[in-house]
Amino acid sequence: MTGKSLYNVAVVGATGAVGQKIISLLQEKKFPINEIKLLSSKRSAGTKIRFNDKTITVEEATPDSFEGVDIALFSAGGSVSKQLAKEAVKRGAVVVDNTSAFRMDEKVPLVVPEVNEEDLARHEGIIANPNCSTIQMVTALKPIRDHFGLKRVIVSTYQAVSGAGNQAVEELEKQVEQYMNKEEMTADILPVKGDKKHYPIAFNALPQIDVFQDNGYTFEEMKMINETKKILHDDSLSVAATCVRLPFITSHAESVYIEVEKKGVTVGDLWKVLEEQPGVTVMDDPATQTYPTPLQAANKEDVFVGRVRKDLDHEKGFHFWVVSDNLLKGAAWNTVQIASSLIQNNWLQKK
Amino acid sequence: MTGKSLYNVAVVGATGAVGQKIISLLQEKKFPINEIKLLSSKRSAGTKIRFNDKTITVEEATPDSFEGVDIALFSAGGSVSKQLAKEAVKRGAVVVDNTSAFRMDEKVPLVVPEVNEEDLARHEGIIANPNCSTIQMVTALKPIRDHFGLKRVIVSTYQAVSGAGNQAVEELEKQVEQYMNKEEMTADILPVKGDKKHYPIAFNALPQIDVFQDNGYTFEEMKMINETKKILHDDSLSVAATCVRLPFITSHAESVYIEVEKKGVTVGDLWKVLEEQPGVTVMDDPATQTYPTPLQAANKEDVFVGRVRKDLDHEKGFHFWVVSDNLLKGAAWNTVQIASSLIQNNWLQKK
Repeated sequence: MTGKSLYNVAVVGATGAVGQKIISLLQEKKFPINEIKLLSSKRSAGTKIRFNDKTITVEEATPDSFEGVDIALFSAGGSVSKQLAKEAVKRGAVVVDNTSAFRMDEKVPLVVPEVNEEDLARHEGIIANPNCSTIQMVTALKPIRDHFGLKRVIVSTYQAVSGAGNQAVEELEKQVEQYMNKEEMTADILPVKGDKKHYPIAFNALPQIDVFQDNGYTFEEMKMINETKKILHDDSLSVAATCVRLPFITSHAESVYIEVEKKGVTVGDLWKVLEEQPGVTVMDDPATQTYPTPLQAANKEDVFVGRVRKDLDHEKGFHFWVVSDNLLKGAAWNTVQIASSLIQNNWLQKK
Repeated sequence: MTGKSLYNVAVVGATGAVGQKIISLLQEKKFPINEIKLLSSKRSAGTKIRFNDKTITVEEATPDSFEGVDIALFSAGGSVSKQLAKEAVKRGAVVVDNTSAFRMDEKVPLVVPEVNEEDLARHEGIIANPNCSTIQMVTALKPIRDHFGLKRVIVSTYQAVSGAGNQAVEELEKQVEQYMNKEEMTADILPVKGDKKHYPIAFNALPQIDVFQDNGYTFEEMKMINETKKILHDDSLSVAATCVRLPFITSHAESVYIEVEKKGVTVGDLWKVLEEQPGVTVMDDPATQTYPTPLQAANKEDVFVGRVRKDLDHEKGFHFWVVSDNLLKGAAWNTVQIASSLIQNNWLQKK
């Protein structure tokens, strides 16, 4: 495969919220594609999607769909990845998987290119794209850790509805209409599709993202905790997370508290290393009310950081606010970045 | 004044979001009123408001409005309180002030009745009602501190638009309509009326509540930090806050991290003391997806606590989620509770 200049690419989950963004980015970034296959569940097969100057019919994803495919980008949910990712690898494809199916598998690199790109080199066919809320946080933590050490992270998230898929966005919009028409709001999807209870998200906040684990944390919270340690290669790092779904459509925001290892670090020091970090834009000027917001970050690829300030009691403690488009850097853009890195570094071949 | 059984009460800011709630509660709780005066700015004077079986005309608040008033409940903004609270005291009234004007004044008790009711006894005419986001947090912290000690608090808030007044609520509703009609959203009020810049709150999150201070924290964040220490009488307590405005109308939510002093405390221990705390309702059962939300807490007087869990790395660390109606326990209800306590304890007379 090495040395090819054009690649056969499959997008699994082509009609979903993240799949649609991946398809847009592959065109926009002029990804070196020979042939593209758009795959989905049986239900969505037959959908027609424009790609560059062609109209492509979405096909049902089956093991044989991956014959001849070099790179398969999966974002059709964990069960589809569990069923088909290894089938794709068997047939010679490298899989970049956007679900939680393989993220904590020791053999699977979990990668944010600006943070741990070198982990891609040791893949065995599957690479995992981290959880959206993890990606934006570790992108901001990376330069801080590298320069000042990092002992502890406590994060409270403010997460957009699109992270739960297109149906959740439609549910929010339906509830907003119901509310404005003074009708009772009805809920069938959020907080978690298929879970026992559903609550309105419009004009509300739901402190549950993904299902509850036995330890009282939600799976989303455990993803942030475990993935952050794995990506930063630091099992001794303390990470705590509270994840909350909120009534906006795009971009996750996070209120992050950190403790660094080095003494005497200033807010100016943090600004400097954040400004130098690829993929990060600092937006932080209280005098002009400059800080990132979900609406401002939407449709942008960067991770935006603001409200950087020193803890008033703890010399090594700092607080900041991180915002990024959950479907772009949090999903589709990070996936496309991984695929591009594999090509540019000649890492497509399995180890 | 002691021994009276009915009192002359003035409500200053009678047409505002909090004033309206105070008026409702005075009726609902059958507050022992002889005569009620509803006061406001010149602009709102003349408004007619039903109180029990009478229609009362709102009058412009002037120093002389307080002649003969026993209890004056202020919630018309800090500048009105600064101008008129001492005038009311001069004329014999006890003032319960719902603004930030006097909260950090050493001579002014800052009171949440379930937490530090006894501080009321030492008032000199003015009692301050704490900030909404502080009240609900300290109500939950109180029994934890009493039983297990408290070293540290880190809070990230999820605050409702009604905390910024009726105009902010109207702005959110206007922006939601603009959004649904695919028009551009216009912003003139939030994050802070009269500040330099305004951003849409609908489908967004604004990490600014009240104006920025020189230290990079917002005034709302400093209120939470300073008021918590004052109410709990503990200057050595570490408190950090990040305050965020969100697109819902009623109830603030808070993601709180605490470190207790005692070793070996369990989640069950926290549940127990929270359940015994007056004014607190525990709603916490992951198995049935039971936790408080802003919509559920709206129009209720209690502070609701859920998502109580132990930090996975720190033996004395715990996380929880606190929700309460910001206009009730966060403002009007706490104000009426203070006034009732003054009467019941014979504390109306100035010390």
